[in-house]
Amino acid sequence: MSDCVTNDFVHQLDRQYVFHSWSSQGKLDPLVIAGGKGCRMWDYAGKEYLDFSSQLVNTNIGHQHPKVVAAIQAQAETLATVAPAHANLARGEAAKRILERAPGPFSKVFFTNAGADANENAMRMARSFTGRDKILSAYRSYHGNTGAAIVATGDPRRIPNEFARGHAHFFNPYLYRSDFWAVDETQECERALQHLQRVIECEGPGSIAAILLETIPGTAGVLVPPKDYLQGVRKLADQYGILLILDEVMAGFGRTGRWFAFEHFAVEPDLVVFAKGVNSGYVPTGGVIVSDAICRHFDDHMFFGGLTYSGHPLAMASIVATLDAMRDEGVVENADRVGNGVLAKGLQQLAADHAVIGEVRGLGVFHALELVSDRRSRAPLPAAEVAKLKSAMLAKGLLPFVIENRLHIVPPCIVSEAEVEQGLAILDEVLGASC
Amino acid sequence: MSDCVTNDFVHQLDRQYVFHSWSSQGKLDPLVIAGGKGCRMWDYAGKEYLDFSSQLVNTNIGHQHPKVVAAIQAQAETLATVAPAHANLARGEAAKRILERAPGPFSKVFFTNAGADANENAMRMARSFTGRDKILSAYRSYHGNTGAAIVATGDPRRIPNEFARGHAHFFNPYLYRSDFWAVDETQECERALQHLQRVIECEGPGSIAAILLETIPGTAGVLVPPKDYLQGVRKLADQYGILLILDEVMAGFGRTGRWFAFEHFAVEPDLVVFAKGVNSGYVPTGGVIVSDAICRHFDDHMFFGGLTYSGHPLAMASIVATLDAMRDEGVVENADRVGNGVLAKGLQQLAADHAVIGEVRGLGVFHALELVSDRRSRAPLPAAEVAKLKSAMLAKGLLPFVIENRLHIVPPCIVSEAEVEQGLAILDEVLGASC
Ligand SMILES: Cc1ncc(COP(=O)(O)O)c(C=O)c1O
Ligand SMILES: Cc1ncc(COP(=O)(O)O)c(C=O)c1O
Repeated sequence: MSDCVTNDFVHQLDRQYVFHSWSSQGKLDPLVIAGGKGCRMWDYAGKEYLDFSSQLVNTNIGHQHPKVVAAIQAQAETLATVAPAHANLARGEAAKRILERAPGPFSKVFFTNAGADANENAMRMARSFTGRDKILSAYRSYHGNTGAAIVATGDPRRIPNEFARGHAHFFNPYLYRSDFWAVDETQECERALQHLQRVIECEGPGSIAAILLETIPGTAGVLVPPKDYLQGVRKLADQYGILLILDEVMAGFGRTGRWFAFEHFAVEPDLVVFAKGVNSGYVPTGGVIVSDAICRHFDDHMFFGGLTYSGHPLAMASIVATLDAMRDEGVVENADRVGNGVLAKGLQQLAADHAVIGEVRGLGVFHALELVSDRRSRAPLPAAEVAKLKSAMLAKGLLPFVIENRLHIVPPCIVSEAEVEQGLAILDEVLGASC
Repeated sequence: MSDCVTNDFVHQLDRQYVFHSWSSQGKLDPLVIAGGKGCRMWDYAGKEYLDFSSQLVNTNIGHQHPKVVAAIQAQAETLATVAPAHANLARGEAAKRILERAPGPFSKVFFTNAGADANENAMRMARSFTGRDKILSAYRSYHGNTGAAIVATGDPRRIPNEFARGHAHFFNPYLYRSDFWAVDETQECERALQHLQRVIECEGPGSIAAILLETIPGTAGVLVPPKDYLQGVRKLADQYGILLILDEVMAGFGRTGRWFAFEHFAVEPDLVVFAKGVNSGYVPTGGVIVSDAICRHFDDHMFFGGLTYSGHPLAMASIVATLDAMRDEGVVENADRVGNGVLAKGLQQLAADHAVIGEVRGLGVFHALELVSDRRSRAPLPAAEVAKLKSAMLAKGLLPFVIENRLHIVPPCIVSEAEVEQGLAILDEVLGASC
């Protein structure tokens, strides 16, 4: 079929029949993608892109990893679907591998279809375990799009979707645009914790089931927290009998140069929410890693959650192959070495050379550039100029991840130094031409 | 790997690492499933089961259909994942095929990962389109497990999960256990519509965005509505400017012997929610079929919904292959012929022979037997006796779908007359031994 397929044909098919996320449908102009390999993708005309987006920050292992593709094909041959109530080999093997990589007293995995429903189920577990109602989460956050996940989400996409109750929000640390009038990281950290404590006191500690946080808020701007912040949150949670849920949907499974982002902060959550990187999104899946204490609670308490495709065999087989290949091929180590090496240094150099970059933040292959029209006032670069930069990058074959006034630099964890240098050169050229 | 795999090994792996849906985790004893083909599944000891559950009523095309398996394998080879914002061939082709089969003024498809998030997005569209807040749905219903879907759900699993607002529930028709003191179908229909009208009036018509209904409530007991009920609901909806969302997650894509269950009732919904049968669950997916009027609204209004795996290529390729194979092989026609023929007649015969069957209901390969301890009082058969029947069926190699006091008879749509006869013979034996 694909011999006679053109970009125009696919574009037209899409515009006629497909309803898109997060948009008005009238003026969409989607990029056509035909295939990919490693850090590259291409369209039907043979134009290539260096993927610095990892799509939606999910293809940690790169595109079309042969072992993961083969595992999906083999499982499809054996058994493509099975009800969650039955026991299935791939599911047990996938859960075991996830638990082996998660440092802490975790003992079981509950599988879902993606990140949003994983957050739904983590919140459900917390509410059931504590007998409390409220979930606290951060304004600068994204936790997914289903009923409770989108209300736990802090960013403005929450507002037109606000149909769940029992959610309250607090300000999380973001020194570059501090909500606490802080001048350095230590102060930002102290004040963010004081603020959180005040919110807990004012909402009523006895009513709060959990604090839900992205370990490193991703969509909000790759907001690496001050180094003591998460420990401070853990302490507050313990003080009030509140559970700590860390959402590692975007930050987990290698992106920061560790299996889990929380490993950077010496903190132990009660529930870990994952999706994306666990199998690079080759098959829709996600889940919750559950602490031993919570597992024991549910040994004799009913868990009121479930979904048809929980622990889907194709997804499970792809997790097994992904996690084995990531270990065997040192993919997490690569994200650390390349991400915290040539990538981090190169971005700092770009910032030194281009006044439009207000700040560089990140860890591993999880970085963001804050684009500003004025470094002093930190005024965000206007949307029209950001859009021009994006088009220029696409024209030069770089697929970027642009949110508001920020460029998120999030290539696959397998990215090579040469690919990083190629991407940085395109960025340098595009930023140089504009500013 | 699977040469040395045993049932015990898989069972133990599951119990150690996997957290299960809808259960206390302490006493689970999951059936081990190793593989399947058509209407059969087996474990590692070679024990075979005739699958009269279609797992969770999703494998409409049967297990391991070679064309669907091949399509998944081929797409995995080409491109396993791509962001929803990009245009992708398989996605356009899948949407086109769904729209070709949906009778009515539908023009686009929004894809999700499953049934729950499809309902979430249908409700989101309805709320945004109408500018109204409330969703009415039926007490006897199941719409999924995410934040708003589980609150739209009417069955008691809603109660511990009730964290969304703007949901109100009404009684839907169920003559065998009428909530309206009705004595025949005509009366049940009239009274159910009067009741719905009263609920609309009392909730305030101007506050109601949509009525969300399973065309044929499935989990609640395969409650085929009186023939004029849905037209009556459509009329009420029109009268008050309320949208009608039909949830066809379980009833759709062949199960009733038509592509869509609403075709039996000459009614046109504004939004159709689907999952399961669209690709037999070979890859997690679902979605919303959107009417032309609603599509036009969103041409210049932002749609505030989205998810990482919307329109996932593996899922899309499996939809294309499934819908083509179902058409080419007359799978829907088979569900009609076998389901409304030998299956329906056989179940009526069982009811004539066994007093424990209080009622037989259904359409196509979507039937339920209501098990009672007393036909006159219609008292449900106690749980312990139902459990004994279930064990006896499993022992004889029949995989049943048991909910409360009901046996749902929901084999794949490809089931042959011989397989139906084999299943009926096991049912006859087991029911005969017990009663
Ligand atoms: C931190 C975080 N949590 C949850 C989600 C939601 O995941 P999904 O889109 O798979 O539902 C996302 C998606 O970007 C995310 O970044
Ligand atoms: C009618 C109906 N709607 C929605 C759902 C939820 O689908 P899922 O489990 O894929 O989220 C189901 C599941 O059984 C269903 O039967």
